[in-house]
Amino acid sequence: MNNRKILVVGVIMLISLAFVLSNCGKQGMEQGAGKVSVGLSGEVDKVIKERDLTPENVAAAVKTYLPTGRHDEYIMFSSGGHSGQLLVIGIPSMRLLKVVGVFTPEPWQGWGYSKDTKEVLINAMGDKVQWGDTHHPALSETGGEYDGKFVFINDKAHARVAVIDLRDFETKQIVKNPLSLSDHGGAFVTPNTEYVIEGGQYGMPFGYKYASIDEYAEKYRGMVTFWKFDKEKGRIIIEESFALELPPYWQDLCDAGKNASDGWVFCNSFNSEMSTGGIEEGKPPFESGVSQRDMDYLHVINWKKAAETVSQGKFETVEGFKVIPIKTAVEEGILYFIPEPKSPHGVDVTPNGEYLVIAGKLDPHATVYSFSKIKRAIEEKKFSGKDEYGIPILDFDAVKEVQVELGLGPLHTQFDDKGYAYTSLFLESAVVRWTLGGEYAKMHGEEPWRVVTKTSIHYNVGHIAAAEGDTVSPDGKYLVSLNKWAIDRFADVGPLLPQNFQLIDISSKGEKMPLIYDMPIPIGEPHYAQIIKADKLKPWKVYPEVGWDPLTQTKSSYGIKAGEEKVVRKGKQVEIFMTAVRSHFNPERIVVNKGDKIVWHITNIETAHDATHGLAIPYYNINLSIEPGETQTVEFIADREGVFPFYCSEFCSALHLEMMGYLLVKP
Amino acid sequence: MNNRKILVVGVIMLISLAFVLSNCGKQGMEQGAGKVSVGLSGEVDKVIKERDLTPENVAAAVKTYLPTGRHDEYIMFSSGGHSGQLLVIGIPSMRLLKVVGVFTPEPWQGWGYSKDTKEVLINAMGDKVQWGDTHHPALSETGGEYDGKFVFINDKAHARVAVIDLRDFETKQIVKNPLSLSDHGGAFVTPNTEYVIEGGQYGMPFGYKYASIDEYAEKYRGMVTFWKFDKEKGRIIIEESFALELPPYWQDLCDAGKNASDGWVFCNSFNSEMSTGGIEEGKPPFESGVSQRDMDYLHVINWKKAAETVSQGKFETVEGFKVIPIKTAVEEGILYFIPEPKSPHGVDVTPNGEYLVIAGKLDPHATVYSFSKIKRAIEEKKFSGKDEYGIPILDFDAVKEVQVELGLGPLHTQFDDKGYAYTSLFLESAVVRWTLGGEYAKMHGEEPWRVVTKTSIHYNVGHIAAAEGDTVSPDGKYLVSLNKWAIDRFADVGPLLPQNFQLIDISSKGEKMPLIYDMPIPIGEPHYAQIIKADKLKPWKVYPEVGWDPLTQTKSSYGIKAGEEKVVRKGKQVEIFMTAVRSHFNPERIVVNKGDKIVWHITNIETAHDATHGLAIPYYNINLSIEPGETQTVEFIADREGVFPFYCSEFCSALHLEMMGYLLVKP
Repeated sequence: MNNRKILVVGVIMLISLAFVLSNCGKQGMEQGAGKVSVGLSGEVDKVIKERDLTPENVAAAVKTYLPTGRHDEYIMFSSGGHSGQLLVIGIPSMRLLKVVGVFTPEPWQGWGYSKDTKEVLINAMGDKVQWGDTHHPALSETGGEYDGKFVFINDKAHARVAVIDLRDFETKQIVKNPLSLSDHGGAFVTPNTEYVIEGGQYGMPFGYKYASIDEYAEKYRGMVTFWKFDKEKGRIIIEESFALELPPYWQDLCDAGKNASDGWVFCNSFNSEMSTGGIEEGKPPFESGVSQRDMDYLHVINWKKAAETVSQGKFETVEGFKVIPIKTAVEEGILYFIPEPKSPHGVDVTPNGEYLVIAGKLDPHATVYSFSKIKRAIEEKKFSGKDEYGIPILDFDAVKEVQVELGLGPLHTQFDDKGYAYTSLFLESAVVRWTLGGEYAKMHGEEPWRVVTKTSIHYNVGHIAAAEGDTVSPDGKYLVSLNKWAIDRFADVGPLLPQNFQLIDISSKGEKMPLIYDMPIPIGEPHYAQIIKADKLKPWKVYPEVGWDPLTQTKSSYGIKAGEEKVVRKGKQVEIFMTAVRSHFNPERIVVNKGDKIVWHITNIETAHDATHGLAIPYYNINLSIEPGETQTVEFIADREGVFPFYCSEFCSALHLEMMGYLLVKP
Repeated sequence: MNNRKILVVGVIMLISLAFVLSNCGKQGMEQGAGKVSVGLSGEVDKVIKERDLTPENVAAAVKTYLPTGRHDEYIMFSSGGHSGQLLVIGIPSMRLLKVVGVFTPEPWQGWGYSKDTKEVLINAMGDKVQWGDTHHPALSETGGEYDGKFVFINDKAHARVAVIDLRDFETKQIVKNPLSLSDHGGAFVTPNTEYVIEGGQYGMPFGYKYASIDEYAEKYRGMVTFWKFDKEKGRIIIEESFALELPPYWQDLCDAGKNASDGWVFCNSFNSEMSTGGIEEGKPPFESGVSQRDMDYLHVINWKKAAETVSQGKFETVEGFKVIPIKTAVEEGILYFIPEPKSPHGVDVTPNGEYLVIAGKLDPHATVYSFSKIKRAIEEKKFSGKDEYGIPILDFDAVKEVQVELGLGPLHTQFDDKGYAYTSLFLESAVVRWTLGGEYAKMHGEEPWRVVTKTSIHYNVGHIAAAEGDTVSPDGKYLVSLNKWAIDRFADVGPLLPQNFQLIDISSKGEKMPLIYDMPIPIGEPHYAQIIKADKLKPWKVYPEVGWDPLTQTKSSYGIKAGEEKVVRKGKQVEIFMTAVRSHFNPERIVVNKGDKIVWHITNIETAHDATHGLAIPYYNINLSIEPGETQTVEFIADREGVFPFYCSEFCSALHLEMMGYLLVKP
């Protein structure tokens, strides 16, 4: 063997070595059909083989796994559907971090059990209604960015809007729309949270008063309501809020303009046919009656001008609420219609505010409108006519940018940081990625207004939510598909199945858009969600001071320190000032007479993170969660004599079971 | 270079190659301090590096990840704590599959909104109490094995027990204990579910009637109740149930004997001091008053003899319920005490029934009793005395097998298939694995009654639950640590934090017992859980026939088929027979007069899996979930005139929003 041969052998061996190195780790992926062995350890290999995991599954596992103590990068606020609550979910781990009580009493949180929280519920709707149907959460915004301060959510079943404070993740206010019993297009916010927008859904007479269904066109109405929000106070100011009277088409989703279109809001509608059903009389049922026309109307609303009009006194008072009549809206240039195909559902404004994407659930296209064209058409009065209520209809071709064929049953659209749009396809059970045009073309560098790829979901997607997806600067990275049917995705739990949130990795460009996680949603049917960067949230770890009133977010006049406990009797009223600390209540024995009114204040005097106590009082329907520093009050009439052991219902220490006392009601 | 040199070079290169091959995959694990690169793909490597994942984390990710459509191997039924509900969780994915409404109305499921489900709640406790504090779920058993048919759970706040049918995962019955307002030691079942056991907690006069706290020893009592269960009917038979009067020590957890100890039940107790608190008067608070003695009493109860005694008529009737007085229990040899150290909490019977493991939360030992020794001591009357109520106390040394030092704050014990026991250590925040003795020694092959290893948890573990852990043949594999505090484990969600369920891999022998997953529990504070092999559950996918009554699990007399819809008016009562199918109700328009009583039956005539419809009726506080085949009824007085759009609240099709109708209430 000469030197030349040695060199050849050496080079061959080096190449082999390089090849082995470069394929190291890949080797398992190529064993068998799609099987993988990562060689991490024999045990893991065993699991991978047993479960027949593909390389994609292993990659997904690693991408979504969050080791103990690490925190999620994003937080998703999701509606809890007809649970009436708000869900807080970590992304990418897809762990449910909190269920926030909103429209339905929830005893773990004491929501609807303390005096204050009962009143928040009762003030909105009386004490009869004990549930809600949450639909669309909206994070408060500053400059078109989520600011992490508040989240709003509507109740479709009763037309209510709730305000949740993100310092303590608790509901602070619920307002009831006095005009309607049905909202769907809410909540949405304007770019600086000037207003929280609530659009109605099913037509009804204002005040949901009686009128025969035969008088539908004359007496039934739609509406969109602008709730004025005071960021400092953290409250909707009802007196400064107003509604816009609309025809009794069924208004659906809305989206506020931003950047180019700031000052405007866009709501779509269906049932411009004004069908009133009647299957029982042989008439077409709503499902077909409502779906006859090829076009319904996108409502284009100048909310800044509307607010100005109200401030000029040009409104009527209906059910004690300021309402701009259709006529005034038309005269003042507040309201325009645009034809939109067909049975439209979602309307979504691109981050730059220039494009409105409308998905018609019975039309395979997304219809994209240009806001510049809309403005020009309004200025140039390019109308194709008026509807029956005298509202000017902008010429479709004058405002349309493009129609993009996406697939079957398009519903909702989200955006990312790469110039892509994503639309849910309900009938096709897929999420489609497609390219935007205009200034977005240079971001993705691909042909504009074209489908790039589709990812199948399981099954029947409604909304989708992308990371910071409704802001002026979406993040991309993650998209969650809020699927309605779960069928075979999870172990069977009886005829009522969970919904299925599927996490899609949208971090790559082009065709790669893998589905990486399934998360069952076992409480309610969530509709929409928003995803905020976790570091924008600055919640309190404990309340700022001991004796804190979470409703007003100030010190409570009923808060006390250790040593200040007392029981004050005035005639038939017994007022208790109690403290809770690991591991006792003070006082522990409360003796009252049958028929006494009990006013029971309790302060958790702990300041340690997570040192929450509960107060469970049996028979009197009371459970409180009292977080460190919090003061709460319960009131009840001691109408049954007997012995009632009250206790701490939050496991607080090794002697937690001993943290109890006796309420003794003498005959 | 000669041939010898060539050989040397070749061998060196081959060795290098072999080394690279053997370390392929491992290489990343050794990069940096505990970092890993699995070389799966550049993208995954990037994530692993970015998140600083250790090899253990990657292994855990793979072990718990469940690709879309794959089902969990185990199902955990966990209490929902003061949410009042039952949680259904998949293992090892730790995904929450369902929240089952039990003691608290839950609108998503229509639980507490339909006529039947309202009645289940009201029959138990009237309509005042709208929540519960679920504690200990117990799966029904046949021959000491979970049979997958029912699960029972208690409400500590009101002393109630619920029956959930696992064909449809719905609550079918709630019974209220007439003697007490407080249970903790429930629910537990006997090995063939002959009885569901409910032990009381805080002492009170029977019927929770008034008696001065100064008469505690004379007038306050404890109890354990045996609810007779009829498996065929799926109901507790109240008339065949009975209770045992006990001293007003606070009875705590129970466990039924099995195999060797079948026919017996064991309940521990604390506050044998009969402390009554009174911190407000300068007396020792409960937490110290209750913890003075070194020993409390394990209650050893012969339930078969108790049942026989009742059948012989040797009982008193208290609050309409059969009660065996203490005196009778002693005379008949039903009740014995055993001293147990100190402030005992958990009592757990080994799978063979021979050993009882008692953990005293203020004692670092587990005290293990031998059932053979207990039986012998009873036969030989080896008593060390009697308590104040005349109950014979077995000699501690005669019945003790061993005391094993485990660590600080031991609470609960579970078992596996390898002869190990696992005990939660509340104060130490750890789970300890230790060896059992007797016949178990040959299973693990190690020294008996010794600590093997500890795994730290985060933080403050209460109960633990192992796969099939309470059966006569536990599976090992997985153990869940039900932790009470979460502190820094998850992204902050305000002062009220979730609890933390941590999954521990117990499949290996010896010292390896890794913690592999954190699951936040965002609704209630769960206490106990049981884990069943998923394939033992045979839930229905849809109801067996269209027109099904889920309460009776038979055909409903109000169920109808398509074409049979009608509205029947009788005076001021309007009875509606409605169908629901994608995507309409029939009838769609219902006209009534103000003040009419509405009786509204609705049948979901779908037979497709997951084709659930909802029925939301605004203002009248109604939401139903109507699964395929189900018939439900709601009743209300139409006391407000107006227009009330009702709608399907479960997204069922592309035309779901169109699935609505109008309830028109004429003045």
